[in-house]
Amino acid sequence: MPDSWLDLDPDAPFGLATLPYGVFSTAADPAPRTGVAVGAHVLDLGAAARAVGAPFADTVAGPSLDALMAAGRPVWDQVREALTAWLTDPAHEAAVRPHLVERDAVTLHLPFTVADYVDFYASEHHASNVGRIFRPEQEPLTPNWRHLPIGYHGRSGTVVVSGTDIVRPTGQRKPPTEPAPVFGPSVRLDIEAEVGFVVGTPSPMGSRVAVDDFADHVFGVFLLNDWSARDLQAWEYVPLGPFLGKSFATSVSPWIVPVAALSAARVEQPAQDPEPLPYLRGAQPWGLDLRLEVRLNGHVVSRPPFELMYWTAAQQLAHMTVNGASLRTGDVYASGTVSGPEAGQRGCLLELTWSGKEPLHLPDGTERTFLEDGDEVTITATAPGPDGTRVDFGEVAGRVLPAR
Amino acid sequence: MPDSWLDLDPDAPFGLATLPYGVFSTAADPAPRTGVAVGAHVLDLGAAARAVGAPFADTVAGPSLDALMAAGRPVWDQVREALTAWLTDPAHEAAVRPHLVERDAVTLHLPFTVADYVDFYASEHHASNVGRIFRPEQEPLTPNWRHLPIGYHGRSGTVVVSGTDIVRPTGQRKPPTEPAPVFGPSVRLDIEAEVGFVVGTPSPMGSRVAVDDFADHVFGVFLLNDWSARDLQAWEYVPLGPFLGKSFATSVSPWIVPVAALSAARVEQPAQDPEPLPYLRGAQPWGLDLRLEVRLNGHVVSRPPFELMYWTAAQQLAHMTVNGASLRTGDVYASGTVSGPEAGQRGCLLELTWSGKEPLHLPDGTERTFLEDGDEVTITATAPGPDGTRVDFGEVAGRVLPAR
Repeated sequence: MPDSWLDLDPDAPFGLATLPYGVFSTAADPAPRTGVAVGAHVLDLGAAARAVGAPFADTVAGPSLDALMAAGRPVWDQVREALTAWLTDPAHEAAVRPHLVERDAVTLHLPFTVADYVDFYASEHHASNVGRIFRPEQEPLTPNWRHLPIGYHGRSGTVVVSGTDIVRPTGQRKPPTEPAPVFGPSVRLDIEAEVGFVVGTPSPMGSRVAVDDFADHVFGVFLLNDWSARDLQAWEYVPLGPFLGKSFATSVSPWIVPVAALSAARVEQPAQDPEPLPYLRGAQPWGLDLRLEVRLNGHVVSRPPFELMYWTAAQQLAHMTVNGASLRTGDVYASGTVSGPEAGQRGCLLELTWSGKEPLHLPDGTERTFLEDGDEVTITATAPGPDGTRVDFGEVAGRVLPAR
Repeated sequence: MPDSWLDLDPDAPFGLATLPYGVFSTAADPAPRTGVAVGAHVLDLGAAARAVGAPFADTVAGPSLDALMAAGRPVWDQVREALTAWLTDPAHEAAVRPHLVERDAVTLHLPFTVADYVDFYASEHHASNVGRIFRPEQEPLTPNWRHLPIGYHGRSGTVVVSGTDIVRPTGQRKPPTEPAPVFGPSVRLDIEAEVGFVVGTPSPMGSRVAVDDFADHVFGVFLLNDWSARDLQAWEYVPLGPFLGKSFATSVSPWIVPVAALSAARVEQPAQDPEPLPYLRGAQPWGLDLRLEVRLNGHVVSRPPFELMYWTAAQQLAHMTVNGASLRTGDVYASGTVSGPEAGQRGCLLELTWSGKEPLHLPDGTERTFLEDGDEVTITATAPGPDGTRVDFGEVAGRVLPAR
């Protein structure tokens, strides 16, 4: 990878291997606009494209990534190639440098319009643990689990950008000791560390998207915290699935990593047994070697390994559309909680504390079963880039406010 | 109710008691624009408002109802009052009449941008029947059913307007006689006759909407067919709820009946036992006396009574937001299948044919368990209007195309 005329610290986040897209504003110019994170800076994408006279300037110069996402893979490739050229070729420095702003000084916004939001359940370790906790008298995995990537629709309207405070949800829960449900703030507020995918190129109703067409449709990858009220969820979810236990908030990281940045992060998919039906098979199945870290009040409590996910993002896309459901630009789908086989690799407190029975002891001397008011959760991730470089996902963070 | 200078046939649909909103285009002017159904005509709402010089002309003169819905209840009341005045006061005839087009000659469109879509499960008769069919070894109603209106999120991107053809979905199903799931077109394609509600006035994240604030937030009411592939659904829905069995298509009627048109249709809500928690109680609980009819290939197969629904639309709205989930303009929620206690009042084929065991014999000599390719389903409804008038919902119709 060539060097940049920007003096990039190789250990600092957002080198040339990532070049993620986001939407930012500044105190001097509060209008949200698209940007690219590079080192300690954000490049104003629309302004730079106009300064350079790029053919895609109008597509990227909006208040969100929507138009770029809808433009399709050839444009995505063209923009990424241009960005690398602008930041490495000294001939572009004079035009581009004026459109860099300090990353510390920007406000980041939800970078695209969320269309539908689907949440999957693709970690075998997570699904098995949850099965053992929620349905101890049954087999941990339901009979369908190894045949299809289980998923459900979540609430698009409460997808919020990292940094948004999360008000503790209120609702019905039924403690086993009570004859009837009680009402009040959730007492089992949890996180779910997940990886999210956003669709750029739509597909028409009545058609399917094949596993191998993933990169033609998916624009980018990001981190997602699917906040969960376990007590609300446990009482409501039979027979139609999670609803209010999830719908109060879902946080996403502000920087969308292009699929093209993850070619060096592709790894072999874990073996699947039984072999999935043909529509869930690709020419060369691959997972993604994303290494997540979950911090609670600054302390690392888990390091979930995304490469072990049983169902891949490409399989999830094929499954989501096999019934003819259309895709829209802005459709988000998430992996489901990322959990590995070891205790320190579990992606939610439900598993990390085994439903509250084994509290976490934090280095600051406190202990936690579920989240307390004021707690802050931060999820970060990196992946291998080409030639020993690193791809950075930044973070998704949120703080819990007391119930209203 | 005063007479119109338009010679309205009192037996024909869309008299002055309804005045529903929609979006239409014509061969001469293919640009979608808002309209109001009145008798055999559609009034071009934006053009009429401009001709009359109405203060809300800019709000209603768009390509969808989005701006009117977002404008809030005082504007909704103002527009409805103005419409009645325009159509009854001869002084307005000269300005308004040029903006009437023949209803037969218009194309109707999806009238608003669907934000989130939630489907409830509020008929005790439907939920009991489905419980008996899907989970014969258990109590028909789950323990939570009488404590909260069970609901789940559906796919907004596949909500389509009446008249859109429905491609038979494909996917996994597991016949009890097979050791593993098989792949192919659904062989148990069904309908669900429902009533839909669309939110106009949004609410912020972290706040709740009270039962008694229903009419401040809900803009209008319409009919909805929640097409369902029962075989896909039965295999996938444990533990996270329906997904591909529903997400391929949801059809809605094109005319949105204002909440204000339904004041004479309010009836006492069926008794609830146990008494719901306080957040689900209103000052004066009410249901809606909507009388649905379901036709299969032109033959009436069911007459579901909406007034018997256990959970009301106002309770559903309060429940949906009790956890702090925000509302957006365009959020749709549906009642769930409307079924009454009698066999001829069931709102889906699963119940009408008792899971295919008791085929329907149609007057044309054919019989049906589930839908066949080419079948057309039409759901209509009326409600009592003031002073002996009738409120018309029009219809939601769709034809089944073979799987691709």
